[in-house]
Amino acid sequence: MSAASRAKRLKPSNEVIVFDSNRWVSFALCGIPYYIGGEVSELEDLLYYPPEEFTKRGIDLRLGKAVVEVDPDSKTLTYKDVKTGNVEKITWDKLVLATGARSKAPKMWPEVREAENVFYIVHLDSGKYIRDYAKALGPGKRAVVVGSGYVGLEIADALTRLGLKVTILEALEQVAPRVLDPELAKSLEARLRESGVEVVTNAPVERFEIANGKARAAVTPRGRFEGDMFVLGVGIEPSNDLAVQLKLRLGASGAVITDDHTLSSNPDVYAVGDVAEHRDLVTGQMVWRPFAQVANKMGHVAGSNLGGVESVFPGSVGTSAFKVFGMVVARTGLSKSEAEKYGFKPVEVSLEAGTKAHYIPGGSELTLKVVADEKTGRLLGAQAIGLDDSVFWRVNTVAALLTTKGTVWDLFVADYGYQPLLAPVWDPLVVAARLLMRTFGEKPSK
Amino acid sequence: MSAASRAKRLKPSNEVIVFDSNRWVSFALCGIPYYIGGEVSELEDLLYYPPEEFTKRGIDLRLGKAVVEVDPDSKTLTYKDVKTGNVEKITWDKLVLATGARSKAPKMWPEVREAENVFYIVHLDSGKYIRDYAKALGPGKRAVVVGSGYVGLEIADALTRLGLKVTILEALEQVAPRVLDPELAKSLEARLRESGVEVVTNAPVERFEIANGKARAAVTPRGRFEGDMFVLGVGIEPSNDLAVQLKLRLGASGAVITDDHTLSSNPDVYAVGDVAEHRDLVTGQMVWRPFAQVANKMGHVAGSNLGGVESVFPGSVGTSAFKVFGMVVARTGLSKSEAEKYGFKPVEVSLEAGTKAHYIPGGSELTLKVVADEKTGRLLGAQAIGLDDSVFWRVNTVAALLTTKGTVWDLFVADYGYQPLLAPVWDPLVVAARLLMRTFGEKPSK
Repeated sequence: MSAASRAKRLKPSNEVIVFDSNRWVSFALCGIPYYIGGEVSELEDLLYYPPEEFTKRGIDLRLGKAVVEVDPDSKTLTYKDVKTGNVEKITWDKLVLATGARSKAPKMWPEVREAENVFYIVHLDSGKYIRDYAKALGPGKRAVVVGSGYVGLEIADALTRLGLKVTILEALEQVAPRVLDPELAKSLEARLRESGVEVVTNAPVERFEIANGKARAAVTPRGRFEGDMFVLGVGIEPSNDLAVQLKLRLGASGAVITDDHTLSSNPDVYAVGDVAEHRDLVTGQMVWRPFAQVANKMGHVAGSNLGGVESVFPGSVGTSAFKVFGMVVARTGLSKSEAEKYGFKPVEVSLEAGTKAHYIPGGSELTLKVVADEKTGRLLGAQAIGLDDSVFWRVNTVAALLTTKGTVWDLFVADYGYQPLLAPVWDPLVVAARLLMRTFGEKPSK
Repeated sequence: MSAASRAKRLKPSNEVIVFDSNRWVSFALCGIPYYIGGEVSELEDLLYYPPEEFTKRGIDLRLGKAVVEVDPDSKTLTYKDVKTGNVEKITWDKLVLATGARSKAPKMWPEVREAENVFYIVHLDSGKYIRDYAKALGPGKRAVVVGSGYVGLEIADALTRLGLKVTILEALEQVAPRVLDPELAKSLEARLRESGVEVVTNAPVERFEIANGKARAAVTPRGRFEGDMFVLGVGIEPSNDLAVQLKLRLGASGAVITDDHTLSSNPDVYAVGDVAEHRDLVTGQMVWRPFAQVANKMGHVAGSNLGGVESVFPGSVGTSAFKVFGMVVARTGLSKSEAEKYGFKPVEVSLEAGTKAHYIPGGSELTLKVVADEKTGRLLGAQAIGLDDSVFWRVNTVAALLTTKGTVWDLFVADYGYQPLLAPVWDPLVVAARLLMRTFGEKPSK
């Protein structure tokens, strides 16, 4: 909808048609955990704008229409009404693919398709199904969450708030394996346990035991885990069916490779958001990062280009964050081991520090890791965890420095404000820089 | 103490002697308002390290010794014991001037020197005098605070927490005139009034009415303001007496001009912190910024250079922040009118936006202004105000971009993480960038 709105606003002569098989557009899928947990009372509250808003903007919104076929040569597109099954055809001049991503769960465990108590996030309504089922079960019942990425963790948090007992099954040996290094994951895992969550790592789910249309247990090498409901917070993959039909060049992830104008290999087809790859600004490689902030920017850039304003999206640095059970987790750029994989010679520092002046009551500790390249002093990434939202912002600050190819020395010089209620006089970011300067020296590189 | 500790640690053969007329070192003057308000119970809690710590580090700490004379030619220094009046002399090879700043209040209003109920911040003990006096007065009594910079505002907040009624007298036509543009100052002023503070602008204090050793009222063109106690949060100036004796080159502020190694015009004398000027990284001009985070960095750099590790402090961008009556105020770089003064052609955008996803309960609004240079697209500054600590961090993020000479486009691209509890998907920083891109276009400058 970012792309559509912008393409129409900048160039009102554009005829802009949006197809979606669903009944929602412009929704906040990331808000589902707060709908499940009850903080958000109506599903409609998760909409940025109601569909009428886009109609008002002059966009031809065709909801409940699934695009089933698209042909790059004849530039036609076939769509089906999801209720009536009616099929229609239309031609297009330019196409924006924003088909997003989908859960791999039904492929991984086909037996769950018929189980009424197994859930995964498909669209906004998934939130309603999970909430309704959890509320009907009531407090004290057991939910098993498969996967400890941010989706699994946020849903575990929401179900805990509803009073359910929660088990998290993680296939790998630590929680949040794509986000955190093992030491930091340990703090998070401790927090989960303190919050009453049963956490089982090294427990890939081999299959579900199903009886009478319900899953009874998830079977793992570490044993059977029984539950009254199951939520699959496992991997997603790009919804690339139309991209395949269009014969677009795809990356290793299966998502569409795009250039810095968000164009695919077909000069009439843009691809944005979770169906697209884009460039990582630290490594220069293409990456698939199904993150909302990136999707919105790519949509904006595609829309500008379609609206006649040349617009560039150079890429992202992979900033992600979540907050569960009161703990804030954030990362940006590369971890040390990732940096090694990409041919850097990374130097890493890790520190624990207060988030406010030491004498201010109510401050808390954070753990911060920063990685830099030994050859150039260039910052490569950061991870942080703690109980204070400033954890997120300290990582964002490093993200800004990554974007401008900042160095260890920039991290030291960057003039973070000081106020005792808000930060210590030696901000943890500056302390990290000082530790790194033991390796890099105390003046600008070259 | 940053300089001393580093000079000794890096090169233990250094003989490091520290003179201070006071009984404290390594203290957090910025913590005084929280001692006054009662959040910090002991003055000692405001020390970073007790004096013994520095002795342990091998530093020869001479407290209660006032340096009264210093001679650059003979490289001698004369100091006096503040209790006994005993005078001694010592020679030095290298000198670090870290004499800080002092209140101009007793010069501006000589009549207050003998008034027992008029206070201003000289050192840590000032906090004790203010707290003791305010507590002895008790709730309901009236305190008049002169000046609405961060010192005045933080003390007004603290005295309010103690139950006193507070009047703030500001000489200029808005509160926080050195920090905020007039529109943003209006929000702050409204917050002060809602919190029960009487705010009087355009009210420079001409004199105090004194009777029986006590001030009774502050006299301004807008009338007499009576009070039971008075706190002068007005301007400070560099404590440059020794710098004058040393014949160091001084800047317009009266503070010592330093190079990027924190050296003064005398190659054997470093000057750091509130007694020194340093370079502004946006304008390239020398500035006097008596800010704690800058002072500590300069001390670190001077200490490294004395310890044999070449170290550079290129300057600051003028980030400052405060939080009073629950409102967070922060700024960095130049305001639009300052930018004009320095020969830039500034473009400014201003916006109000939520600090979290719109559907998350407990979010709040911030007002954010960002200024960029029309010719180059370079970011020049930002100001923000709101009820959420993220106000501070968004300004810090701009500060990091100012430090690396980032552009409007970098502000857009910088990959701030998204999580509904922590930020909206279109972060206000990105929204500001989008607004600015209407002027600057949507691709990198040249």
